[in-house]
Amino acid sequence: MSAATPSGGLRVRIVGTGLIGASLGIALSRKGFQVSLDDPSPTAAALARDLGAGVLAGETTDVPDLVVVAAPPDVVAAVVAQQLTQWPEAVVTDAASVKGAVLTALRDNGADLSRYVGSHPMAGRERSGAVAAQADLFEGRSWVVTPGPQASAVAIDMVRQIAVAAGSAVLVMTPDEHDAAVAAVSHVPQIAASLVASRLRDLPPGAIALSGQGIRDVTRIAASDPSMWTQILSGNAPAVRAVLEPLAEELDAVLVALRQLESQPDGRAVGARAVLARAVADGNAGQARIPGKHGAAPTTYATVIVVIPDEPGALGRLLRDVGDAGVNMEDLHLEHGVGQPFGLVELSVLPSAAQPLISALNALGWPVHE
Amino acid sequence: MSAATPSGGLRVRIVGTGLIGASLGIALSRKGFQVSLDDPSPTAAALARDLGAGVLAGETTDVPDLVVVAAPPDVVAAVVAQQLTQWPEAVVTDAASVKGAVLTALRDNGADLSRYVGSHPMAGRERSGAVAAQADLFEGRSWVVTPGPQASAVAIDMVRQIAVAAGSAVLVMTPDEHDAAVAAVSHVPQIAASLVASRLRDLPPGAIALSGQGIRDVTRIAASDPSMWTQILSGNAPAVRAVLEPLAEELDAVLVALRQLESQPDGRAVGARAVLARAVADGNAGQARIPGKHGAAPTTYATVIVVIPDEPGALGRLLRDVGDAGVNMEDLHLEHGVGQPFGLVELSVLPSAAQPLISALNALGWPVHE
Repeated sequence: MSAATPSGGLRVRIVGTGLIGASLGIALSRKGFQVSLDDPSPTAAALARDLGAGVLAGETTDVPDLVVVAAPPDVVAAVVAQQLTQWPEAVVTDAASVKGAVLTALRDNGADLSRYVGSHPMAGRERSGAVAAQADLFEGRSWVVTPGPQASAVAIDMVRQIAVAAGSAVLVMTPDEHDAAVAAVSHVPQIAASLVASRLRDLPPGAIALSGQGIRDVTRIAASDPSMWTQILSGNAPAVRAVLEPLAEELDAVLVALRQLESQPDGRAVGARAVLARAVADGNAGQARIPGKHGAAPTTYATVIVVIPDEPGALGRLLRDVGDAGVNMEDLHLEHGVGQPFGLVELSVLPSAAQPLISALNALGWPVHE
Repeated sequence: MSAATPSGGLRVRIVGTGLIGASLGIALSRKGFQVSLDDPSPTAAALARDLGAGVLAGETTDVPDLVVVAAPPDVVAAVVAQQLTQWPEAVVTDAASVKGAVLTALRDNGADLSRYVGSHPMAGRERSGAVAAQADLFEGRSWVVTPGPQASAVAIDMVRQIAVAAGSAVLVMTPDEHDAAVAAVSHVPQIAASLVASRLRDLPPGAIALSGQGIRDVTRIAASDPSMWTQILSGNAPAVRAVLEPLAEELDAVLVALRQLESQPDGRAVGARAVLARAVADGNAGQARIPGKHGAAPTTYATVIVVIPDEPGALGRLLRDVGDAGVNMEDLHLEHGVGQPFGLVELSVLPSAAQPLISALNALGWPVHE
């Protein structure tokens, strides 16, 4: 292994030059890595080269120190195995969003697992198209590194190096820990969003018009690509099933409670009300665990609501005034009224900042309330 | 009925001076309506008066033209019935978020249904506290008016009048249409968000750290109040059950598919993959029906992503520059990186505005990508 190579000069082979592969190539090339590009489609590889992602694999005789496989989920394991064989000294990683299945397939295949370390750069998945590749795709995102038990420390470090060079924050966990985590924070939310959105298909237009910010938020990710998600959910079936099963049991309990209330609407169905209250309270407890910005402990923010005219620049003027007041927003939601020429802006700020912000905005003539 | 009274001088009695009642009182008083306030708690009524919501009921001998009952969901029907009896010439409306149960209870009670018209002002429900009352609470929100079959045209018009005066957009539908609509666009999303969030309770801290914008959006409303939601879900049990049952069936089908894939991970479970793909595709179709801003037909927006430093004023400077470019944002999402001193801003704009915006922001030195 060429682990002694200075990181700046590390030779990286990227196999698969779609959005992830090409973006990584651009980011690493700018940091001085020597990147070469391989793809079953010569056109795709050439496009990535033209975007500054590296040189074509056929145009270099360099032996890679590290191979990054950024292929579609269903062929990742086979391509990793092939690369481990082709480059007997290189470390190989991949960028698939499910990790356990790849490691199992490699183990069954008898691959050299000391040189394989899985990766999951959690970047911009719902955007597609290699032409959208950008050097900053990984900036500020999490990059999960998932070494198996046989992975060497040198291999783990090399993968960590490219993640940091791409601007990501590295999190290390086992493949199974990763798969259980993404099942709960990504795959099951995707299924829930899709099923809730699915119920809107047959709703009358007048009913759809009552949609507010709640349904918009819950179903935003329901716009995701079905074939990509079929691969992801299939690849992580055991972990997704393990999260979804207790959810389905709780849903059945809610349905039983609703049927009880339907047949006894006069207040006798006390146990049924307790089931509903428990479901919402348990949701409170789970939601409160989601970290705030920068992975910090979750914080309860104060909300300041401002009514703004629906015209170019209005939000910019408001946020410039917020900035002038020395207040940092933690979050922002826009809500547009139905048939109204203005919108509501919900600014989330630290509780201590709310009153000074309200005073400052009031003084500038903004219609504000808390 | 005093329907001939000029609207400016309409005498409105508000019964229940919490957030909704007090806010409505302030809004209507400012528009010249003669508002009187009643509440089982003299303190609550006096607070609303001090906020400018109207005069105390005990301090006026005026007979109301219109009574608005803004009481907790579980006592609304009884209070409406009492008001219809107390004021035999007045129109009575209420502000509960479930409409069919109120009308049924009044019918069973033998009330004069020509003078009752249900309302649902869809305003700021997850914020609580009468002290948060504001004149603009209803501005830009939908206000659903739900006349029963016996409601008089004069009564319907009077309720519509106060909704418009409060700044809302009026939507008219039957109580059952309303309840079916809110079941699908509000109550079932609430249950789904709560159940997904509930699964996060036992997750290891490292797993929670992988939370991205998807899980944040899906579970945002899971922070809602359990006791309020128990009343809402109980009151709308039949309509919620009717939407939730087919959802639970689809969830079971997804679980069966995942179990098939778990036992046959090698590609034989073709039917199982089709079930997953169909669930996500059906979600695409439902999500696409949610209206864009101002109740217009849904539009597909282009997304422009900008990396900004995490410091006060950065977002304001960006959005001022967006405004200077003459571009109107349709939506905006902030995403904070894990452990990174900057954030990603996703600007949604009309597709035709994307390229000019990117050029303008690039020229000003913003790191932009599409």
